Amino acid sequence: MNASIITIGDEILIGQIIDTNSSYIAKALDKIGVSINEMLSISDEKQHILNTLKQLQNKVDLVIITGGLGPTKDDITKKTFCKYFEDELVENDSVLLHVKEIIEGFYKRPITQINRDQALVPSKATVLFNKVGTAPGMWIKKENTVYVSLPGVPYEMKYLVDEVIVPKLISEYNRASIVHKTIMTYGRGESLIAEQIEDWEDNLPEHIKLAYLPSPGKVRLRLSSKGFDEKVLNEEIDFQVQKLHEIIGEIIIGTENDQPIENVVSDLLRKENRTLAVAESCTGGRIAQLLTAIPGASVFFKGGVVCYATESKINVLGVSEDLISMHSVVSKQVAESMATQAKKIFKSDYAIATTGNAGPEKGDSDVEVGTVFIAFATPNGVFSEEFNFGQPREKVTGRAVNKGFEILYKEILKKE
Amino acid sequence: MNASIITIGDEILIGQIIDTNSSYIAKALDKIGVSINEMLSISDEKQHILNTLKQLQNKVDLVIITGGLGPTKDDITKKTFCKYFEDELVENDSVLLHVKEIIEGFYKRPITQINRDQALVPSKATVLFNKVGTAPGMWIKKENTVYVSLPGVPYEMKYLVDEVIVPKLISEYNRASIVHKTIMTYGRGESLIAEQIEDWEDNLPEHIKLAYLPSPGKVRLRLSSKGFDEKVLNEEIDFQVQKLHEIIGEIIIGTENDQPIENVVSDLLRKENRTLAVAESCTGGRIAQLLTAIPGASVFFKGGVVCYATESKINVLGVSEDLISMHSVVSKQVAESMATQAKKIFKSDYAIATTGNAGPEKGDSDVEVGTVFIAFATPNGVFSEEFNFGQPREKVTGRAVNKGFEILYKEILKKE
Repeated sequence: MNASIITIGDEILIGQIIDTNSSYIAKALDKIGVSINEMLSISDEKQHILNTLKQLQNKVDLVIITGGLGPTKDDITKKTFCKYFEDELVENDSVLLHVKEIIEGFYKRPITQINRDQALVPSKATVLFNKVGTAPGMWIKKENTVYVSLPGVPYEMKYLVDEVIVPKLISEYNRASIVHKTIMTYGRGESLIAEQIEDWEDNLPEHIKLAYLPSPGKVRLRLSSKGFDEKVLNEEIDFQVQKLHEIIGEIIIGTENDQPIENVVSDLLRKENRTLAVAESCTGGRIAQLLTAIPGASVFFKGGVVCYATESKINVLGVSEDLISMHSVVSKQVAESMATQAKKIFKSDYAIATTGNAGPEKGDSDVEVGTVFIAFATPNGVFSEEFNFGQPREKVTGRAVNKGFEILYKEILKKE
Repeated sequence: MNASIITIGDEILIGQIIDTNSSYIAKALDKIGVSINEMLSISDEKQHILNTLKQLQNKVDLVIITGGLGPTKDDITKKTFCKYFEDELVENDSVLLHVKEIIEGFYKRPITQINRDQALVPSKATVLFNKVGTAPGMWIKKENTVYVSLPGVPYEMKYLVDEVIVPKLISEYNRASIVHKTIMTYGRGESLIAEQIEDWEDNLPEHIKLAYLPSPGKVRLRLSSKGFDEKVLNEEIDFQVQKLHEIIGEIIIGTENDQPIENVVSDLLRKENRTLAVAESCTGGRIAQLLTAIPGASVFFKGGVVCYATESKINVLGVSEDLISMHSVVSKQVAESMATQAKKIFKSDYAIATTGNAGPEKGDSDVEVGTVFIAFATPNGVFSEEFNFGQPREKVTGRAVNKGFEILYKEILKKE
């Protein structure tokens, strides 16, 4: 089974918002063996939508469309569906009841005509009931292609994908198996890795595909395969991963299926029953934010200080003023003191501290733009490393965050 | 002038990464009057790329392609270009010199064949020199369409777009003017706004387009127009914005061209010469992270505490243990104490504090999932508000962050 994903909305084409819906849908479909051929973002003009629906007719089995289902005049997906499927809008009773419950029950105000119109759906559509919002999803089959329309609000789209569409596809359609395994490596560049694994790569079986995914401070290697026997696919890929471990095992930090490193670290902390705190200067809360985005983070994450101004390193963290004036605020000594203090005041087992200059201009310190010190307080003491992550600003903070997690991960493993 | 944007890479089609490049490129082109017709994400298969290049031939003036220019075997854009343009790869001397400087100069290791191959470019291409990476961009015209290929690494793509492509388009091509103005409203739902501005919307001139962009806690209204006289376009749109202010002025927080609210707040703080600190529980560092992503944030942002665990509210922030046991950790009293303490220890003029339960499960408190208290310490005292932001987790934190900035913004304005 294959699919295309369409996002409707001028806000995407003018770069006002980033389309994250397509990626979420793709991941969910890929997981159940539906291959994505293409993603398209198009304008919310009727003719453009009609042309795109037609272009995909009978080319793919499934077309998933997000956007244009809201209550306002710029939302034209339903009307366009009626045109394409030669259909008309009818009021759906259960959707209307649900809209009333939300508006009158939760928002405590009378329902208006605009709200009521949310219950209109094309008569040929199977309604996909949207428990978390007022716009229902729709499912219409024409010839060999199923067209599904979903609201563009991310959490409404996610609800419908996870709770309605995926179960429906699993129960009603035959699908292949798609297996990916992503190996995360830290601390070596993609071209060097490519040289080291060249022989192995050249000898990969035809049906196993390798992709390199470089980002600041890390390279992910993805092995993908498709077929009908998931067990065999998994065995084949595991065999290749094992070989890869033999060649570059020292830079591999995990083979979880695309777990970000903060999840790898958090799983390890949970497993070891250890806790973490952070003191962030140049990373500005990014480490804390990644950790607290994980549900249940309070088990292993004690908290953090974003000590962006120099005086807050003194007042809040308790770094000595003399130490700062002696060594500068971006220094090994200050980084280590920050980590030690964070561990102490949050009563955690580990602490990560960052201090540096992310640029674009020199700040409270004389160090080069891009210089970052990352320090680690552990049950066995404190240590730090100095880096220059270059420019721009987002690369510096991104690499500092990844480097911090990478070193901490290795450090915790060492103590096992 | 119009354009399509293509992103090449299976990692996007399987949902492993989100394409942020297309949005960046679209925004940069839109700003100089280039309309984006469509964005496409396609697989890194040769035939798929060839078909897509062909499909856009003479349909648009410009095709911008990102991805597939790296040094590894899965990067096939250059070879595919040679096929499409009936061309061959030749070594470019200045690119080779630059690659040597990066590898031998910055990374301090000998250049390898894989690195050297980065200097190969199709002979018909104009090389777009990539100062910040090893893969050059390419510019090839065929019949009525210019094809531009850029590396997929975001900061390399951004450098080439900003420093090379935009200046080249401005100097070599005639373009229309596209004017957008985005009005940010906070605290009212999109359907209610739509009812209130219905008459105004119905009477908008044909060539001015209105779009609603709802997200947790805010709705942005975008007015767009295209033509050749930018001054007239701006005047027309300003006139409509003025009318909109008369109808819903009380919920409009700004008319900056799509400034996120953290930038609006930071500009106001700078202007008023005021400083801010934060104490974040349920928002987990997100407010601090948004503020520190703004270059020069140290002028107005003193820092923050991510007091995720209850004990860190006591130990680090200095909230009284009795207060917490008396009122619960998610309460008006604790939120206000957090804000007061943050203001005090960071010596700031203002402080925002958040405490709540973002879900999915009940945590250290008995309150309903979705409940958030946001407190504000100001030069004139402390106050707080209680919200229920529903579910899921990301909606709760997103709305809490936006609400915090919104209330702070109004509060600072009041004191002027």
